[in-house]
Amino acid sequence: MAILDKNELLELNSRYRATLINSLAGFKTAVLVGTENNEGQSNLAIFNSLIHIGANPPIYAFICRPDTVRRDTLSNILETGSYSFNYVQSSDFAKAHQTSAKYETEISEFEAVGFGKTYFEGFSAPFVSEAPIKIAMKFIEKIDIAINGTIMVLGSIEKIVFDDHLLAEDGFIALEKADILACTGLDAYYKSEFLGRLSYAKPETEPKRIDTETQV
Amino acid sequence: MAILDKNELLELNSRYRATLINSLAGFKTAVLVGTENNEGQSNLAIFNSLIHIGANPPIYAFICRPDTVRRDTLSNILETGSYSFNYVQSSDFAKAHQTSAKYETEISEFEAVGFGKTYFEGFSAPFVSEAPIKIAMKFIEKIDIAINGTIMVLGSIEKIVFDDHLLAEDGFIALEKADILACTGLDAYYKSEFLGRLSYAKPETEPKRIDTETQV
Repeated sequence: MAILDKNELLELNSRYRATLINSLAGFKTAVLVGTENNEGQSNLAIFNSLIHIGANPPIYAFICRPDTVRRDTLSNILETGSYSFNYVQSSDFAKAHQTSAKYETEISEFEAVGFGKTYFEGFSAPFVSEAPIKIAMKFIEKIDIAINGTIMVLGSIEKIVFDDHLLAEDGFIALEKADILACTGLDAYYKSEFLGRLSYAKPETEPKRIDTETQV
Repeated sequence: MAILDKNELLELNSRYRATLINSLAGFKTAVLVGTENNEGQSNLAIFNSLIHIGANPPIYAFICRPDTVRRDTLSNILETGSYSFNYVQSSDFAKAHQTSAKYETEISEFEAVGFGKTYFEGFSAPFVSEAPIKIAMKFIEKIDIAINGTIMVLGSIEKIVFDDHLLAEDGFIALEKADILACTGLDAYYKSEFLGRLSYAKPETEPKRIDTETQV
Protein backbone atom coordinates (compact mmCIF):
# COMPACT_ATOMS: atom_id res chain seq x y z
CA MET A 1 0.00 0.00 0.00
CA ALA A 2 1.13 3.52 -0.81
CA ILE A 3 0.41 6.17 1.80
CA LEU A 4 0.84 9.86 1.07
CA ASP A 5 0.40 12.36 3.88
CA LYS A 6 -0.44 16.01 3.39
CA ASN A 7 3.13 17.13 3.99
CA GLU A 8 4.40 14.71 1.36
CA LEU A 9 1.75 15.95 -1.07
CA LEU A 10 2.82 19.55 -0.51
CA GLU A 11 6.47 18.67 -1.17
CA LEU A 12 5.77 17.02 -4.52
CA ASN A 13 6.72 18.65 -7.80
CA SER A 14 3.71 20.81 -8.70
CA ARG A 15 3.01 19.11 -12.05
CA TYR A 16 3.22 15.64 -10.48
CA ARG A 17 0.89 16.75 -7.68
CA ALA A 18 -1.58 18.30 -10.14
CA THR A 19 -1.68 15.05 -12.13
CA LEU A 20 -2.15 13.02 -8.96
CA ILE A 21 -4.88 15.16 -7.38
CA ASN A 22 -6.74 15.66 -10.65
CA SER A 23 -6.79 11.97 -11.58
CA LEU A 24 -7.65 10.90 -8.05
CA ALA A 25 -10.80 13.07 -8.19
CA GLY A 26 -12.44 10.31 -10.18
CA PHE A 27 -14.59 9.68 -13.22
CA LYS A 28 -16.53 12.50 -14.86
CA THR A 29 -18.31 12.99 -18.14
CA ALA A 30 -16.14 14.88 -20.61
CA VAL A 31 -18.20 17.99 -21.39
CA LEU A 32 -17.54 20.33 -24.29
CA VAL A 33 -18.69 23.83 -23.37
CA GLY A 34 -19.74 25.93 -26.36
CA THR A 35 -19.84 29.72 -26.17
CA GLU A 36 -19.76 32.73 -28.47
CA ASN A 37 -18.92 36.35 -27.78
CA ASN A 38 -21.01 39.31 -28.94
CA GLU A 39 -18.92 39.53 -32.11
CA GLY A 40 -19.89 35.98 -33.06
CA GLN A 41 -16.49 34.44 -32.27
CA SER A 42 -17.20 30.92 -31.08
CA ASN A 43 -15.27 28.85 -28.56
CA LEU A 44 -15.33 25.21 -27.53
CA ALA A 45 -13.49 23.85 -24.49
CA ILE A 46 -13.45 20.57 -22.61
CA PHE A 47 -14.40 20.55 -18.93
CA ASN A 48 -14.69 17.66 -16.52
CA SER A 49 -16.47 19.31 -13.62
CA LEU A 50 -20.19 19.31 -14.36
CA ILE A 51 -22.06 19.33 -11.05
CA HIS A 52 -25.71 18.56 -10.40
CA ILE A 53 -27.06 21.31 -8.13
CA GLY A 54 -30.78 20.66 -8.28
CA ALA A 55 -33.67 19.33 -10.35
CA ASN A 56 -36.40 21.78 -9.32
CA PRO A 57 -35.58 24.09 -10.99
CA PRO A 58 -32.95 22.23 -13.06
CA ILE A 59 -29.56 23.75 -12.24
CA TYR A 60 -26.06 22.55 -13.13
CA ALA A 61 -22.73 24.11 -12.22
CA PHE A 62 -19.16 23.73 -13.38
CA ILE A 63 -15.80 24.85 -12.02
CA CYS A 64 -13.61 27.39 -13.79
CA ARG A 65 -10.00 28.06 -12.95
CA PRO A 66 -9.16 31.67 -13.81
CA ASP A 67 -5.56 30.77 -14.63
CA THR A 68 -6.36 28.35 -17.44
CA VAL A 69 -6.94 28.59 -21.17
CA ARG A 70 -10.64 28.24 -20.50
CA ARG A 71 -11.06 31.90 -19.63
CA ASP A 72 -12.55 32.53 -23.10
CA THR A 73 -15.39 30.32 -21.97
CA LEU A 74 -16.02 32.26 -18.79
CA SER A 75 -15.76 35.69 -20.40
CA ASN A 76 -18.17 34.65 -23.17
CA ILE A 77 -20.65 33.35 -20.61
CA LEU A 78 -20.48 36.58 -18.62
CA GLU A 79 -20.88 38.58 -21.85
CA THR A 80 -23.86 36.72 -23.32
CA GLY A 81 -25.36 34.62 -20.50
CA SER A 82 -25.60 31.71 -22.95
CA TYR A 83 -23.59 28.48 -23.12
CA SER A 84 -24.00 24.87 -24.14
CA PHE A 85 -22.96 21.53 -22.65
CA ASN A 86 -22.21 18.88 -25.25
CA TYR A 87 -21.51 15.22 -24.47
CA VAL A 88 -19.55 13.35 -27.11
CA GLN A 89 -19.15 9.74 -28.16
CA SER A 90 -16.11 7.91 -26.84
CA SER A 91 -14.74 7.50 -30.38
CA ASP A 92 -14.29 11.31 -30.46
CA PHE A 93 -11.99 11.39 -27.44
CA ALA A 94 -8.93 12.73 -29.27
CA LYS A 95 -10.90 15.58 -30.85
CA ALA A 96 -12.49 16.41 -27.52
CA HIS A 97 -9.06 16.50 -25.86
CA GLN A 98 -7.66 18.73 -28.59
CA THR A 99 -10.10 21.52 -27.61
CA SER A 100 -7.89 22.03 -24.54
CA ALA A 101 -5.04 23.39 -26.71
CA LYS A 102 -4.34 27.10 -26.27
CA TYR A 103 -5.79 28.39 -29.51
CA GLU A 104 -5.90 32.15 -29.99
CA THR A 105 -9.22 33.80 -29.16
CA GLU A 106 -9.91 34.43 -32.85
CA ILE A 107 -9.60 30.71 -33.65
CA SER A 108 -12.77 28.67 -33.29
CA GLU A 109 -12.05 25.26 -31.77
CA PHE A 110 -15.04 23.92 -33.73
CA GLU A 111 -13.13 24.41 -36.98
CA ALA A 112 -9.64 23.81 -35.63
CA VAL A 113 -10.58 20.46 -34.11
CA GLY A 114 -13.24 19.42 -36.60
CA PHE A 115 -16.57 19.44 -34.82
CA GLY A 116 -19.71 20.67 -36.59
CA LYS A 117 -21.43 23.74 -35.17
CA THR A 118 -25.17 24.10 -34.84
CA TYR A 119 -27.55 26.59 -33.24
CA PHE A 120 -30.98 26.55 -31.66
CA GLU A 121 -33.38 29.46 -31.83
CA GLY A 122 -33.19 31.71 -28.80
CA PHE A 123 -29.64 30.71 -27.81
CA SER A 124 -26.56 32.57 -28.98
CA ALA A 125 -24.21 29.78 -27.86
CA PRO A 126 -23.18 27.20 -30.47
CA PHE A 127 -23.68 23.44 -30.03
CA VAL A 128 -21.62 20.48 -31.25
CA SER A 129 -23.55 18.89 -34.13
CA GLU A 130 -22.18 15.41 -33.42
CA ALA A 131 -23.07 15.48 -29.71
CA PRO A 132 -25.72 12.85 -28.88
CA ILE A 133 -26.69 15.01 -25.89
CA LYS A 134 -26.86 18.81 -26.03
CA ILE A 135 -27.91 21.04 -23.14
CA ALA A 136 -28.65 24.76 -23.48
CA MET A 137 -27.64 26.65 -20.36
CA LYS A 138 -28.45 30.15 -19.11
CA PHE A 139 -26.06 31.81 -16.68
CA ILE A 140 -27.45 32.43 -13.18
CA GLU A 141 -24.51 33.45 -11.03
CA LYS A 142 -20.89 32.76 -10.22
CA ILE A 143 -19.67 31.86 -6.78
CA ASP A 144 -16.08 32.76 -5.97
CA ILE A 145 -14.28 30.09 -3.97
CA ALA A 146 -11.98 32.36 -2.02
CA ILE A 147 -9.55 29.72 -0.79
CA ASN A 148 -7.89 29.28 -4.20
CA GLY A 149 -9.56 31.73 -6.59
CA THR A 150 -11.63 29.06 -8.30
CA ILE A 151 -15.03 30.04 -9.67
CA MET A 152 -18.22 27.97 -9.68
CA VAL A 153 -20.54 28.91 -12.52
CA LEU A 154 -24.23 28.16 -11.94
CA GLY A 155 -26.76 28.01 -14.75
CA SER A 156 -30.29 26.85 -15.44
CA ILE A 157 -31.06 24.12 -17.95
CA GLU A 158 -33.08 25.75 -20.72
CA LYS A 159 -33.28 22.96 -23.28
CA ILE A 160 -32.17 19.35 -23.63
CA VAL A 161 -31.73 17.71 -27.01
CA PHE A 162 -30.94 14.00 -27.23
CA ASP A 163 -31.68 10.80 -29.11
CA ASP A 164 -35.09 9.36 -28.13
CA HIS A 165 -33.71 5.90 -27.47
CA LEU A 166 -31.67 7.16 -24.49
CA LEU A 167 -34.77 8.02 -22.43
CA ALA A 168 -36.26 5.34 -20.17
CA GLU A 169 -39.90 5.28 -19.10
CA ASP A 170 -39.11 6.76 -15.68
CA GLY A 171 -37.01 9.69 -16.95
CA PHE A 172 -33.60 8.00 -16.72
CA ILE A 173 -31.14 8.97 -19.46
CA ALA A 174 -28.98 5.96 -20.39
CA LEU A 175 -25.66 7.60 -21.27
CA GLU A 176 -24.12 4.23 -22.14
CA LYS A 177 -26.56 3.80 -25.03
CA ALA A 178 -24.94 6.79 -26.72
CA ASP A 179 -21.46 5.60 -25.74
CA ILE A 180 -20.83 8.91 -23.92
CA LEU A 181 -17.18 9.72 -23.19
CA ALA A 182 -15.94 9.75 -19.59
CA CYS A 183 -12.60 10.94 -18.28
CA THR A 184 -10.37 11.32 -15.24
CA GLY A 185 -7.87 14.08 -14.58
CA LEU A 186 -6.67 16.14 -17.50
CA ASP A 187 -5.83 13.51 -20.09
CA ALA A 188 -7.32 10.05 -19.42
CA TYR A 189 -10.42 8.87 -21.28
CA TYR A 190 -12.86 6.02 -20.72
CA LYS A 191 -15.85 4.19 -22.11
CA SER A 192 -18.47 2.95 -19.70
CA GLU A 193 -19.83 -0.53 -19.21
CA PHE A 194 -23.32 -0.62 -17.68
CA LEU A 195 -23.66 -2.79 -14.58
CA GLY A 196 -27.30 -2.07 -13.77
CA ARG A 197 -29.79 0.13 -12.02
CA LEU A 198 -30.90 -0.65 -8.49
CA SER A 199 -34.22 -0.02 -6.74
CA TYR A 200 -34.64 2.68 -4.08
CA ALA A 201 -32.72 1.41 -1.05
CA LYS A 202 -34.59 0.57 2.15
CA PRO A 203 -33.05 -0.64 5.42
CA GLU A 204 -34.85 -3.99 5.59
CA THR A 205 -34.51 -5.17 1.99
CA GLU A 206 -31.72 -5.84 -0.47
CA PRO A 207 -31.64 -3.66 -3.57
CA LYS A 208 -33.14 -5.22 -6.68
CA ARG A 209 -32.29 -4.57 -10.28
CA ILE A 210 -34.52 -2.16 -12.18
CA ASP A 211 -35.10 -3.01 -15.81
CA THR A 212 -36.39 0.12 -17.46
CA GLU A 213 -37.52 0.03 -21.03
CA THR A 214 -36.33 2.91 -23.12
CA GLN A 215 -38.84 4.62 -25.36
CA VAL A 216 -38.92 3.91 -29.07
CA MET B 1 -34.53 13.51 -31.55
CA ALA B 2 -36.20 14.36 -28.26
CA ILE B 3 -36.27 18.03 -27.30
CA LEU B 4 -37.30 19.17 -23.85
CA ASP B 5 -37.63 22.88 -23.15
CA LYS B 6 -37.45 24.44 -19.73
CA ASN B 7 -41.22 24.86 -19.46
CA GLU B 8 -41.71 21.19 -20.28
CA LEU B 9 -39.10 20.24 -17.68
CA LEU B 10 -40.88 22.30 -15.03
CA GLU B 11 -44.21 20.62 -15.82
CA LEU B 12 -42.88 17.08 -15.39
CA ASN B 13 -43.75 14.94 -12.40
CA SER B 14 -41.13 15.80 -9.80
CA ARG B 15 -39.74 12.27 -9.43
CA TYR B 16 -39.47 11.84 -13.21
CA ARG B 17 -37.71 15.20 -13.47
CA ALA B 18 -35.32 14.35 -10.62
CA THR B 19 -34.41 11.04 -12.31
CA LEU B 20 -33.91 12.82 -15.64
CA ILE B 21 -31.81 15.73 -14.36
CA ASN B 22 -29.74 13.55 -12.03
CA SER B 23 -28.91 10.94 -14.66
CA LEU B 24 -28.25 13.56 -17.33
CA ALA B 25 -25.56 15.10 -15.07
CA GLY B 26 -23.22 12.37 -16.21
CA PHE B 27 -20.69 9.89 -14.92
CA LYS B 28 -19.16 10.26 -11.47
CA THR B 29 -17.16 8.06 -9.16
CA ALA B 30 -19.37 6.50 -6.50
CA VAL B 31 -17.85 7.78 -3.26
CA LEU B 32 -18.63 6.37 0.18
CA VAL B 33 -18.27 9.12 2.77
CA GLY B 34 -17.32 7.84 6.23
CA THR B 35 -17.95 9.90 9.35
CA GLU B 36 -18.35 9.43 13.09
CA ASN B 37 -19.92 11.67 15.71
CA ASN B 38 -18.31 12.54 19.04
CA GLU B 39 -20.07 9.56 20.66
CA GLY B 40 -18.36 7.18 18.26
CA GLN B 41 -21.47 6.45 16.16
CA SER B 42 -20.24 5.84 12.65
CA ASN B 43 -21.99 6.59 9.38
CA LEU B 44 -21.36 5.65 5.76
CA ALA B 45 -23.23 7.20 2.83
CA ILE B 46 -22.86 7.12 -0.93
CA PHE B 47 -22.31 10.42 -2.76
CA ASN B 48 -21.76 11.07 -6.44
CA SER B 49 -20.62 14.68 -6.37
CA LEU B 50 -16.91 14.76 -5.59
CA ILE B 51 -15.43 17.93 -7.11
CA HIS B 52 -11.80 18.78 -7.70
CA ILE B 53 -11.24 22.32 -6.42
CA GLY B 54 -7.46 22.56 -6.50
CA ALA B 55 -4.17 20.69 -6.23
CA ASN B 56 -2.09 23.29 -4.40
CA PRO B 57 -3.13 22.89 -1.67
CA PRO B 58 -5.12 19.72 -2.44
CA ILE B 59 -8.82 20.53 -1.94
CA TYR B 60 -11.91 18.52 -2.85
CA ALA B 61 -15.55 19.44 -2.37
CA PHE B 62 -18.85 17.62 -2.48
CA ILE B 63 -22.47 18.69 -2.59
CA CYS B 64 -24.90 18.06 0.25
CA ARG B 65 -28.65 18.44 0.01
CA PRO B 66 -30.02 19.34 3.43
CA ASP B 67 -33.29 17.52 2.75
CA THR B 68 -31.77 14.09 2.22
CA VAL B 69 -30.86 11.16 4.42
CA ARG B 70 -27.26 12.22 4.16
CA ARG B 71 -27.62 14.88 6.85
CA ASP B 72 -25.93 12.53 9.37
CA THR B 73 -22.85 12.90 7.20
CA LEU B 74 -22.94 16.69 7.25
CA SER B 75 -23.67 16.99 10.96
CA ASN B 76 -20.83 14.57 11.79
CA ILE B 77 -18.43 16.56 9.60
CA LEU B 78 -19.41 19.82 11.27
CA GLU B 79 -19.05 18.15 14.71
CA THR B 80 -15.63 16.54 14.23
CA GLY B 81 -14.09 18.16 11.13
CA SER B 82 -13.04 14.69 9.96
CA TYR B 83 -14.38 12.56 7.10
CA SER B 84 -13.20 9.97 4.62
CA PHE B 85 -13.74 9.37 0.92
CA ASN B 86 -13.69 5.69 -0.05
CA TYR B 87 -13.78 4.41 -3.64
CA VAL B 88 -15.05 0.88 -4.05
CA GLN B 89 -14.66 -1.87 -6.61
CA SER B 90 -17.43 -2.26 -9.16
CA SER B 91 -18.31 -5.71 -7.79
CA ASP B 92 -19.46 -3.97 -4.58
CA PHE B 93 -22.04 -1.81 -6.33
CA ALA B 94 -25.09 -3.26 -4.57
CA LYS B 95 -23.52 -2.80 -1.12
CA ALA B 96 -22.49 0.74 -1.99
CA HIS B 97 -26.03 1.53 -3.15
CA GLN B 98 -27.52 0.06 0.03
CA THR B 99 -25.77 2.75 2.13
CA SER B 100 -28.35 5.18 0.72
CA ALA B 101 -31.15 3.49 2.70
CA LYS B 102 -32.57 5.57 5.54
CA TYR B 103 -31.06 3.76 8.48
CA GLU B 104 -31.62 5.23 11.92
CA THR B 105 -28.78 7.41 13.24
CA GLU B 106 -27.81 4.72 15.78
CA ILE B 107 -27.33 2.12 13.02
CA SER B 108 -23.90 2.01 11.41
CA GLU B 109 -24.14 1.45 7.68
CA PHE B 110 -20.74 -0.31 7.88
CA GLU B 111 -22.36 -3.19 9.78
CA ALA B 112 -25.80 -2.99 8.20
CA VAL B 113 -24.41 -3.18 4.69
CA GLY B 114 -21.36 -5.31 5.37
CA PHE B 115 -18.29 -3.18 4.81
CA GLY B 116 -15.27 -3.47 7.10
CA LYS B 117 -14.33 -0.41 9.16
CA THR B 118 -10.78 0.74 9.68
CA TYR B 119 -9.10 3.78 11.21
CA PHE B 120 -5.90 5.74 10.72
CA GLU B 121 -4.08 7.50 13.53
CA GLY B 122 -5.01 11.14 13.83
CA PHE B 123 -8.40 10.81 12.09
CA SER B 124 -11.63 10.17 13.94
CA ALA B 125 -13.50 9.30 10.75
CA PRO B 126 -13.76 5.62 9.82
CA PHE B 127 -12.62 4.20 6.45
CA VAL B 128 -13.94 1.32 4.37
CA SER B 129 -11.46 -1.56 4.74
CA GLU B 130 -12.22 -2.95 1.27
CA ALA B 131 -11.76 0.41 -0.50
CA PRO B 132 -8.76 0.30 -2.89
CA ILE B 133 -8.54 4.09 -2.51
CA LYS B 134 -9.07 5.88 0.79
CA ILE B 135 -8.77 9.63 1.28
CA ALA B 136 -8.70 11.33 4.68
CA MET B 137 -10.37 14.74 4.55
CA LYS B 138 -10.37 17.69 6.94
CA PHE B 139 -13.27 20.12 6.82
CA ILE B 140 -12.39 23.65 5.68
CA GLU B 141 -15.69 25.44 5.10
CA LYS B 142 -19.17 25.10 3.71
CA ILE B 143 -20.56 27.34 1.04
CA ASP B 144 -24.33 27.81 0.99
CA ILE B 145 -25.79 27.83 -2.50
CA ALA B 146 -28.67 30.19 -1.85
CA ILE B 147 -30.68 29.45 -4.97
CA ASN B 148 -31.86 26.05 -3.74
CA GLY B 149 -30.43 25.55 -0.24
CA THR B 150 -27.73 23.15 -1.41
CA ILE B 151 -24.45 23.12 0.50
CA MET B 152 -20.95 22.69 -0.91
CA VAL B 153 -18.56 21.17 1.63
CA LEU B 154 -14.87 21.97 1.07
CA GLY B 155 -12.07 20.02 2.69
CA SER B 156 -8.35 19.50 2.44
CA ILE B 157 -6.81 16.16 1.51
CA GLU B 158 -4.86 15.00 4.56
CA LYS B 159 -3.86 11.49 3.55
CA ILE B 160 -4.24 9.19 0.55
CA VAL B 161 -4.01 5.39 0.89
CA PHE B 162 -4.04 3.23 -2.23
CA ASP B 163 -2.54 0.18 -3.86
CA ASP B 164 0.94 0.94 -5.23
CA HIS B 165 0.20 -0.48 -8.65
CA LEU B 166 -2.35 2.29 -9.37
CA LEU B 167 0.30 5.04 -9.37
CA ALA B 168 2.01 5.91 -12.67
CA GLU B 169 5.46 7.46 -12.88
CA ASP B 170 4.06 10.95 -13.48
CA GLY B 171 1.60 10.94 -10.58
CA PHE B 172 -1.42 9.64 -12.51
CA ILE B 173 -3.72 7.35 -10.52
CA ALA B 174 -5.17 4.66 -12.81
CA LEU B 175 -8.63 4.12 -11.31
CA GLU B 176 -9.42 1.42 -13.86
CA LYS B 177 -6.64 -0.79 -12.47
CA ALA B 178 -8.61 -1.03 -9.23
CA ASP B 179 -11.89 -1.47 -11.12
CA ILE B 180 -13.32 1.60 -9.34
CA LEU B 181 -17.10 1.94 -9.43
CA ALA B 182 -18.70 4.78 -11.40
CA CYS B 183 -22.34 5.84 -11.44
CA THR B 184 -24.90 8.19 -12.92
CA GLY B 185 -27.91 9.65 -11.20
CA LEU B 186 -29.17 7.99 -8.06
CA ASP B 187 -29.22 4.33 -9.03
CA ALA B 188 -27.19 3.45 -12.15
CA TYR B 189 -23.76 1.86 -11.86
CA TYR B 190 -20.88 1.39 -14.29
CA LYS B 191 -17.47 -0.15 -14.79
CA SER B 192 -14.94 1.77 -16.83
CA GLU B 193 -13.02 0.72 -19.90
CA PHE B 194 -9.77 2.62 -20.39
CA LEU B 195 -9.35 4.25 -23.80
CA GLY B 196 -6.01 5.95 -23.23
CA ARG B 197 -4.18 9.01 -22.00
CA LEU B 198 -3.33 11.82 -24.39
CA SER B 199 -0.39 14.22 -24.43
CA TYR B 200 -0.76 17.90 -23.49
CA ALA B 201 -2.72 19.46 -26.34
CA LYS B 202 -1.07 22.11 -28.53
CA PRO B 203 -2.70 23.99 -31.41
CA GLU B 204 -0.31 22.80 -34.14
CA THR B 205 -0.05 19.11 -33.30
CA GLU B 206 -2.39 16.18 -32.88
CA PRO B 207 -2.56 14.61 -29.42
CA LYS B 208 -0.46 11.47 -28.97
CA ARG B 209 -1.04 8.60 -26.64
CA ILE B 210 0.90 8.60 -23.38
CA ASP B 211 2.03 5.22 -22.14
CA THR B 212 2.85 5.61 -18.49
CA GLU B 213 4.35 2.75 -16.61
CA THR B 214 2.89 2.19 -13.20
CA GLN B 215 5.27 1.63 -10.33
CA VAL B 216 5.90 -1.85 -8.97
